[in-house]
Amino acid sequence: MTKKISIVGASGYTGGELIRWALMHPEMEVVQVTSDRFAGQAVYKLNPNLRGFTQLAFSPVKELKTDVDTVFLCTPHEKAVPYVKKFMETGAKIIDLSADFRLKDKNEYAKYYSEHQAPELLGKAVYGIPELHREEIKKAKLVACAGCLATSVILATAPMIKSKLISVSGIIADAKIGSSAGGAAFDISTHHPERMGTVRSYKPKGHRHTAEIEQELSAINGSKVSVGLTPHGVELIRGISTAVYAGISSDITDIKVWKAYRSFFADSPFVRLVKDQGTLYRYPEPKPVIGTNFADIGFEIDQEKGRIILMSAIDNLVKGSGGQAIQCFNLMNGFDEKTGLWYPGYHPI
Amino acid sequence: MTKKISIVGASGYTGGELIRWALMHPEMEVVQVTSDRFAGQAVYKLNPNLRGFTQLAFSPVKELKTDVDTVFLCTPHEKAVPYVKKFMETGAKIIDLSADFRLKDKNEYAKYYSEHQAPELLGKAVYGIPELHREEIKKAKLVACAGCLATSVILATAPMIKSKLISVSGIIADAKIGSSAGGAAFDISTHHPERMGTVRSYKPKGHRHTAEIEQELSAINGSKVSVGLTPHGVELIRGISTAVYAGISSDITDIKVWKAYRSFFADSPFVRLVKDQGTLYRYPEPKPVIGTNFADIGFEIDQEKGRIILMSAIDNLVKGSGGQAIQCFNLMNGFDEKTGLWYPGYHPI
Amino acid sequence: MTKKISIVGASGYTGGELIRWALMHPEMEVVQVTSDRFAGQAVYKLNPNLRGFTQLAFSPVKELKTDVDTVFLCTPHEKAVPYVKKFMETGAKIIDLSADFRLKDKNEYAKYYSEHQAPELLGKAVYGIPELHREEIKKAKLVACAGCLATSVILATAPMIKSKLISVSGIIADAKIGSSAGGAAFDISTHHPERMGTVRSYKPKGHRHTAEIEQELSAINGSKVSVGLTPHGVELIRGISTAVYAGISSDITDIKVWKAYRSFFADSPFVRLVKDQGTLYRYPEPKPVIGTNFADIGFEIDQEKGRIILMSAIDNLVKGSGGQAIQCFNLMNGFDEKTGLWYPGYHPI
Amino acid sequence: MTKKISIVGASGYTGGELIRWALMHPEMEVVQVTSDRFAGQAVYKLNPNLRGFTQLAFSPVKELKTDVDTVFLCTPHEKAVPYVKKFMETGAKIIDLSADFRLKDKNEYAKYYSEHQAPELLGKAVYGIPELHREEIKKAKLVACAGCLATSVILATAPMIKSKLISVSGIIADAKIGSSAGGAAFDISTHHPERMGTVRSYKPKGHRHTAEIEQELSAINGSKVSVGLTPHGVELIRGISTAVYAGISSDITDIKVWKAYRSFFADSPFVRLVKDQGTLYRYPEPKPVIGTNFADIGFEIDQEKGRIILMSAIDNLVKGSGGQAIQCFNLMNGFDEKTGLWYPGYHPI
Repeated sequence: MTKKISIVGASGYTGGELIRWALMHPEMEVVQVTSDRFAGQAVYKLNPNLRGFTQLAFSPVKELKTDVDTVFLCTPHEKAVPYVKKFMETGAKIIDLSADFRLKDKNEYAKYYSEHQAPELLGKAVYGIPELHREEIKKAKLVACAGCLATSVILATAPMIKSKLISVSGIIADAKIGSSAGGAAFDISTHHPERMGTVRSYKPKGHRHTAEIEQELSAINGSKVSVGLTPHGVELIRGISTAVYAGISSDITDIKVWKAYRSFFADSPFVRLVKDQGTLYRYPEPKPVIGTNFADIGFEIDQEKGRIILMSAIDNLVKGSGGQAIQCFNLMNGFDEKTGLWYPGYHPI
Repeated sequence: MTKKISIVGASGYTGGELIRWALMHPEMEVVQVTSDRFAGQAVYKLNPNLRGFTQLAFSPVKELKTDVDTVFLCTPHEKAVPYVKKFMETGAKIIDLSADFRLKDKNEYAKYYSEHQAPELLGKAVYGIPELHREEIKKAKLVACAGCLATSVILATAPMIKSKLISVSGIIADAKIGSSAGGAAFDISTHHPERMGTVRSYKPKGHRHTAEIEQELSAINGSKVSVGLTPHGVELIRGISTAVYAGISSDITDIKVWKAYRSFFADSPFVRLVKDQGTLYRYPEPKPVIGTNFADIGFEIDQEKGRIILMSAIDNLVKGSGGQAIQCFNLMNGFDEKTGLWYPGYHPI
Repeated sequence: MTKKISIVGASGYTGGELIRWALMHPEMEVVQVTSDRFAGQAVYKLNPNLRGFTQLAFSPVKELKTDVDTVFLCTPHEKAVPYVKKFMETGAKIIDLSADFRLKDKNEYAKYYSEHQAPELLGKAVYGIPELHREEIKKAKLVACAGCLATSVILATAPMIKSKLISVSGIIADAKIGSSAGGAAFDISTHHPERMGTVRSYKPKGHRHTAEIEQELSAINGSKVSVGLTPHGVELIRGISTAVYAGISSDITDIKVWKAYRSFFADSPFVRLVKDQGTLYRYPEPKPVIGTNFADIGFEIDQEKGRIILMSAIDNLVKGSGGQAIQCFNLMNGFDEKTGLWYPGYHPI
Repeated sequence: MTKKISIVGASGYTGGELIRWALMHPEMEVVQVTSDRFAGQAVYKLNPNLRGFTQLAFSPVKELKTDVDTVFLCTPHEKAVPYVKKFMETGAKIIDLSADFRLKDKNEYAKYYSEHQAPELLGKAVYGIPELHREEIKKAKLVACAGCLATSVILATAPMIKSKLISVSGIIADAKIGSSAGGAAFDISTHHPERMGTVRSYKPKGHRHTAEIEQELSAINGSKVSVGLTPHGVELIRGISTAVYAGISSDITDIKVWKAYRSFFADSPFVRLVKDQGTLYRYPEPKPVIGTNFADIGFEIDQEKGRIILMSAIDNLVKGSGGQAIQCFNLMNGFDEKTGLWYPGYHPI
């Protein structure tokens, strides 16, 4: 049965992506999208791809509809709490795409963001990576979708942690990420002449997604896992390519790694393992996942240097954000996980 | 009822695009894709986007299956004739994406390509732009899909010709086109360091698509229309943006132009008119049509210079090639024109 | 003898480019660069290429030094007049890179900009394209450098007008231009995810540079020349590629066109004629001129369509702005035109 | 006194770059450039940037001139030995840009390349990074220029090794590199639609430059240093951005790192230290070094993760190849190191 959904804070790139997928989803009816800044403006004016697909306009937040089955929150970080409280009262299912409910530990939230406004609710949220928390998501009332960088690191690394194939200290994650991850807000750093063709280390240490990565990997490991995350802005609009470098013991083999991944992702239709010597695209790359909900995962063992290179590629706005949220929606509402999401990308793109 | 289809010469970008759309189409079953060069190789090795969607492999041409409902020909120019003859015998519907059956006049074909091998068949083909030939396509056994540049010029210009709003002499079409239009074959001109960031006038005069543009526009006009086509390779993979410059008489108005377009495209779901002062995307641009079958069309009257600027944007591999072919397939087989094609693009992309 | 120069309004891209060239020029000493917004800040903080080359910082305008030999004005349009008046009193040579003194006719200025604040001075300025006004520039006290698009159109077209080889009505100029031409100010239209990969017709009619193009070409022709200019933002930071379409009479030949160009540019070291069938770069393209003061010019006669395609490529920030200004400086001060400017570009770039 | 130089194997990108710099160098006269494949063809046909700067044409190798002061070898790997032998007899100074004389250990050469043809000569070559071997280069007859990736890793890392500030085991180097590093030879992997917008891990382990990196760092360290190098092709033509991740002890400070770098590079004009919180370009990036011989170096200490991130940016064709060779030429011939190389880049580019 079709579900009524709304999207709060829908004028950014994450909101636009959600609107797109929701409009095409066979079981969703979009009843409202809110934006104070663009209130009254047609959605397709900000999202020219949607011209001809919807006459929907943004509503001001003061006209917020609460009579929905599921609400998606695309508010800025530290702004989701009031909406979560409000919709918890109405009984709507809540999918929060901000960072506000990703962390279980209020101290970690305070360290990376600010003091949390509703720490008592942190325990009620399920972290929204279905490949890790599928069963909990099915039962959840509140899902906190993962950060895009976190998704790319966790999917590549979690199976290795679980199978005890890598060292849990000194893990390095070097990510290359497109400009859309910064959102629709602009400044000199996103000005085309300054941003085009750059390889920019904008946050070499202390990136906020470190907290959720370590939380999730540590939970799998049973004790603290430490990850040094360093993202680089590169010449892409969409896409994250991440290389995770980790220590290995000498008895690791390709077969063991394959098995660990296959086992971990046995029920995960959106993870594709890519390690294919005969082709140009022999490791994960952003291009084949652009516009899709796939996470492509691969690896190479460098026995001589005592390390393994784990590789992942996702579209930050789909698997790293809007598509992940739709996947959670499907699970929370009893639909097949793939509903409305099962599309290949384009080649070449 | 599901139709069995095959694709001959399927290893290039047009073939890959067709495979993608066919796999997702609710009424198509792909029974064979051929390529001598890549015979035996899995389709997803060349099309990494299709990993997880098909285990199909390329068949050698000697194993050609003729028991299909519709065959798509993606052979190089001047190679389609034998296949057309063969499938005419089997009764299959034929959609030729090469240039071999686009022109009605064998002399024009000889001028721009070479002597035609089966001039007697030229009259049997319908030119595959549904917006011009919808009813004929519905009844056709052989459809010749239009060239990508031709599609972009014709869709912007035909309504103006039909409504007698522009001068039919001295029309200039300046097109900007992505690198995928050159296909999967590579040489120094497509080598990334030489091709990236270029604006290259590779065929300032005498481009082959001129012939089909003039054929179609002249047919609408009732007498010769002359178009000077000059394409430029620009920094895109997918996409064509075309500006058509034509002379106007002084009594032209925005309303008249709007009416001419709206009337011409009244039954054409894949044409969107774009002229929207309040937005960033106020004229057609490639970005909102990437990955879609849409043609975005717009215009600006420059009364002071006695000219009108007509603008169109398409994805050369979709509306300019594979998507157009699927649209023709739908019409030829009695399906709704939009079947399997009704998807919006992505933003930003 | 080394000349003391200053640059007013130096914090934008044109100012940065001028600083770069001035620092490397053997006959220039930069005594001041002004910017109220960035007063006190080191030049290399905005221009990371200049790290290690200068410790110069921006001065506030209130500390303006007038004891200079030549002043370069990089103020916004409609802001140069007070500086021109001030420096005319000091006897400094003035090179204005804004649009304020390009037009001779105050009505044209009013039409495209606003009412001019000092129309009595319009006649004192020399238009700063050395290939047209070399001798006047040598004697000038006030030079108004040309707009970047205007430079690209005029250099390709002026020799054809002078030699009466093309029709002077119905000329169409379709330009493709990089994002740096919009300057260092940013908004949503220059936000990387919205600007990357676009082909955007941002001003299809009525572009301000039309006025100076028509002024200069009409002066050569002896009567009104009409040009319809339509620029497109494309995926470049630097560079303009312009195609000019003009009508021809049937007796035009390649040799006549070559002769017209060679004669016109006989003493112009920075114009290179490019029409070279044996090579990949057989017509002008932006890549070989990036970072240089060259204007590459080429053409193709399309006898069948009664038209000629004139092509030019420049770096908008060098030949279209800062480099052109240095070239004028050289002429005004009796130096060889090439001084400090005679560098090739890079390949590939 | 002007030196006569020649370039063997000059038709590739490294050769083209050398020709460019040599033509502009005040102390060099280019007497010959060889290429069998392009023999007889004008240099500017392959290097469109050099149009107007030289009428030089490629000579076939059989016409090799040996009466030169310095010869630059741009031959493919494993092809330089015969030329080295020949020019050693003539007494010419030899600067080899291939990999053939970079390694001191013939076993390492065999492991990464093939069996060396003249192992007895390995000891005669000086590794061509002036920042490490300035005094030896001044006296050398044979210099082996470093690989581009090796240069980027070594310059960032050597001072840290020398000052014992980082752990010498488990060093990870993640490099992002432009397409020009692959040279002028093309295949499907460099075809624009396949290469544009990629982040491609093409050699995650075992890259050949690992050998020279470890050789040089181990020599400084006095015992084996192990580096895991993983390069990624990204959307650039020119440029390398490298992040080196290394373990640190807890008493490291910014000041100690600064001192180590400043001391190491005290006499090195082409290294710029970049760590500048107040600006957009606060760490090294490729854009400010494009077209220059600079290596920009920066760092960030991540005390919490027990690691330091070292960052470097160079132009692979200049500091990573042709410019480095010119710098060696200057040193070998008693010229100032900066001669003919002291140019800033462009901004924005």
